[in-house]
Amino acid sequence: MAKEKQVAQITAMEDDFAQWYTDVCTKAELVDYSGVKGLFILRPYGYALWENIMNVLDAKFKATGHENVSMPLLIPESLLQREKDHVEGFAPECAWVTMGGSEELDERLCVRPTSETLFCDHWSHVLQSWRDLPMKYNQWCSVLRWEKTTRPFLRGREFLWQEGHTLHATEAEAREETLQQLEIYADVLENYLAMPVIRGNKTEKEKFAGAVETYTVECMMHDHKALQSGTSHYFGTGFAEAFGITFQNKENQAAYPHQTSWGMSTRVIGGLIMTHGDDRGLVVPPRIAPIQVIVLPIAAHKPGVTEAAEAIVERLKAAGIRAKGDFSDNSAGWKYAQYEMKGVPLRVEIGPKDLEKGQFVAARRDNGEKAFLPLDELESAVAKLLDDVHDGLYRKAKENLESHTWAVTSVAEAKEKAADGFVKAMWCGDLACELRMKEEAGVSSRCIPYKQERVSDVCVCCGKPAKHMVYWGVAY
Amino acid sequence: MAKEKQVAQITAMEDDFAQWYTDVCTKAELVDYSGVKGLFILRPYGYALWENIMNVLDAKFKATGHENVSMPLLIPESLLQREKDHVEGFAPECAWVTMGGSEELDERLCVRPTSETLFCDHWSHVLQSWRDLPMKYNQWCSVLRWEKTTRPFLRGREFLWQEGHTLHATEAEAREETLQQLEIYADVLENYLAMPVIRGNKTEKEKFAGAVETYTVECMMHDHKALQSGTSHYFGTGFAEAFGITFQNKENQAAYPHQTSWGMSTRVIGGLIMTHGDDRGLVVPPRIAPIQVIVLPIAAHKPGVTEAAEAIVERLKAAGIRAKGDFSDNSAGWKYAQYEMKGVPLRVEIGPKDLEKGQFVAARRDNGEKAFLPLDELESAVAKLLDDVHDGLYRKAKENLESHTWAVTSVAEAKEKAADGFVKAMWCGDLACELRMKEEAGVSSRCIPYKQERVSDVCVCCGKPAKHMVYWGVAY
Repeated sequence: MAKEKQVAQITAMEDDFAQWYTDVCTKAELVDYSGVKGLFILRPYGYALWENIMNVLDAKFKATGHENVSMPLLIPESLLQREKDHVEGFAPECAWVTMGGSEELDERLCVRPTSETLFCDHWSHVLQSWRDLPMKYNQWCSVLRWEKTTRPFLRGREFLWQEGHTLHATEAEAREETLQQLEIYADVLENYLAMPVIRGNKTEKEKFAGAVETYTVECMMHDHKALQSGTSHYFGTGFAEAFGITFQNKENQAAYPHQTSWGMSTRVIGGLIMTHGDDRGLVVPPRIAPIQVIVLPIAAHKPGVTEAAEAIVERLKAAGIRAKGDFSDNSAGWKYAQYEMKGVPLRVEIGPKDLEKGQFVAARRDNGEKAFLPLDELESAVAKLLDDVHDGLYRKAKENLESHTWAVTSVAEAKEKAADGFVKAMWCGDLACELRMKEEAGVSSRCIPYKQERVSDVCVCCGKPAKHMVYWGVAY
Repeated sequence: MAKEKQVAQITAMEDDFAQWYTDVCTKAELVDYSGVKGLFILRPYGYALWENIMNVLDAKFKATGHENVSMPLLIPESLLQREKDHVEGFAPECAWVTMGGSEELDERLCVRPTSETLFCDHWSHVLQSWRDLPMKYNQWCSVLRWEKTTRPFLRGREFLWQEGHTLHATEAEAREETLQQLEIYADVLENYLAMPVIRGNKTEKEKFAGAVETYTVECMMHDHKALQSGTSHYFGTGFAEAFGITFQNKENQAAYPHQTSWGMSTRVIGGLIMTHGDDRGLVVPPRIAPIQVIVLPIAAHKPGVTEAAEAIVERLKAAGIRAKGDFSDNSAGWKYAQYEMKGVPLRVEIGPKDLEKGQFVAARRDNGEKAFLPLDELESAVAKLLDDVHDGLYRKAKENLESHTWAVTSVAEAKEKAADGFVKAMWCGDLACELRMKEEAGVSSRCIPYKQERVSDVCVCCGKPAKHMVYWGVAY
């Protein structure tokens, strides 16, 4: 037998949250660093997390009538420049292909940072009549944005995402689509990733380059910073006009279609790490966990134990639960620590005494609670415990959000409170006040939430009549 | 009501096979051309085909213990150069990123043409012990190869594929993996795409850059040319040595692992078009068809017809069959032509007379056969018909392959017969004779098939004793 594997050690959250985060990313075997700064490798466990999130999203996109497509990786510079605001937003962080084989290209090609321009170019070829609308497309791919500072999942020069792009005959229908897709993101974050969200509009300053309106779902991390976790944009007819996309409407007239786009990325994996993780490592929300239940035989050499553990794995799998047994000769201590590091929501153990009593042991990753449960209720008991873990994670995250959100009425107060959470403050709607909040209180506007409250009658900055209540915070 | 939609026209196969092919690609709405030569857009119907192929492959990869990962898009030039044969094979067709934002990069980065070097770099970080082996990874992604001439699916500067990469402790295990994965490709081609294959080894000349051995599945197209449809490579320890990948074996010694890679791409969509298509358009093999059954109401305004057609769609869907109803006000003629163009394997119709008789009409896309079948046997009858279509397509393709394969014993005969199919000819194993076959008979070696036949005792070229029987042909 080779020497025993070592349990990986990680930095404590309290000591250095950023270091804790990168420790979890690597020690839980989610990512590896590649030879290019900001381009990360998603290892099997990290990719399986993303696969499960993709499967949930993809099913919801298809159920709402969207179709997947594949657009090219490269955008000619002239195409990117077609929409003025858009190119200003993205050109500074484009990676450029300038050579093909040994030849210099006539026109340099940008590796897509997002694909609005590609979809628009395609639509300008194929859209003809109102009968072709709506066109509701989605694409799963990676995009490149040449960022200065990078961190696994949170900010990469390459990241994986989905980008939805749709065209509609009317503004009302496009706006409805924009909101509907934001609700899908909120649903997936809350009901699969156990991350409570704040839904709202972005301010003019924080909108997507080229959008008329950007909607967002914002989440609070364990360190009380904000993570923008999904956005949905209504474009009006701006891109259609820039790209010459028209259709013949029911009245036989040429009209511009109304456009949307919406995206969610591997960033949400960073989000779930910083929402649920603890000093023992990752805690994965059960509904997207690659391994929902790890099954360990205790005193595996005793008669019947291994067979019983194998039977448990098979029964759970047959019940549609993602269960795995670890029958290796690694020590029990190593196994405990390893699956805790990987954040497996539930550990099931069975040993000789349990066999005698017809029971199994279930230990929750989120709160460490252990229960002795009858073997003949295995499937239903485990399914219930997985739901309990989800609910427990969601509740804890919701408490964190609520207990670290403060209504404030002055910039000084905003600065003080923002060090430890979100602040809710009234705003007149002027860019100058938004910039002052950034400069003096160190916060950006996260969103104008759907659920408005009247914290005061006047803007937190200038004292003029307030238009909106805004969430402000320090963002990743 | 707007004016009736026009039925798309395509070139006849006999008149111009290449034009027929591109007509099918565009008129069946599989692809659109982008602004960059050789980078194609996969439209919803084309991508859905690929999605279904992906789903079949992915399930088989997972069932054989493979895990998906995501490697970076970009490869530093120095990393690509680490393995000598590999860089020679790929560097001439790399697309190079030389700028990030407004800055020139210190080292240029190649957009991955294939990812061996990235997997090796990662493995050199993470592999430690025999306990970590095998590592059996797969990646779904797009790759770039800056080709001179391009055609949808068959040869793109960008194409979608999967690339499997595995590491093993022993040569025997790695070789077994290589062959097992080739069998998965053969299985998917024959049993899902209805494309009969010839399995074999590539010659030294035709091997993948850096491989010890390359296995291939070769298919014959309708025009009797060859399409290499999937390859699987055994690398030995060459890459491991070049990248310094070692593990501690059971005897506590450092050892090099044995490596494989294997890939299948969107090329097979080109293959199925050219295998099964006809002058009315695409013919999609049922098991990967995005729409397996199109349901059309006949005289939809008559009482009960639309409801009956809707009920048929729902019953088929409930039986796990991908059915779609077309209840639009387009004419029956347009609908017939449209779904024939798109190659939907089965058309189901129901009209007032059928309702009276408790029957439905089923029309096969492959041979035009129509049947009147009892409504209460809908699900089983349709499932059987879909299998019949699959079998019919496979049989026809097999007949094409067999009736256009000739055993030849001279270069002149090879040249004559190769104009119209594959030739089987003996080979001494020398590169010179392989090159002469290319130059004089215009054929490349497709493979040294598993199933050897003794066409003669001597090499078709030089008359020296023969080592192998080889399939030769004109390849896409």
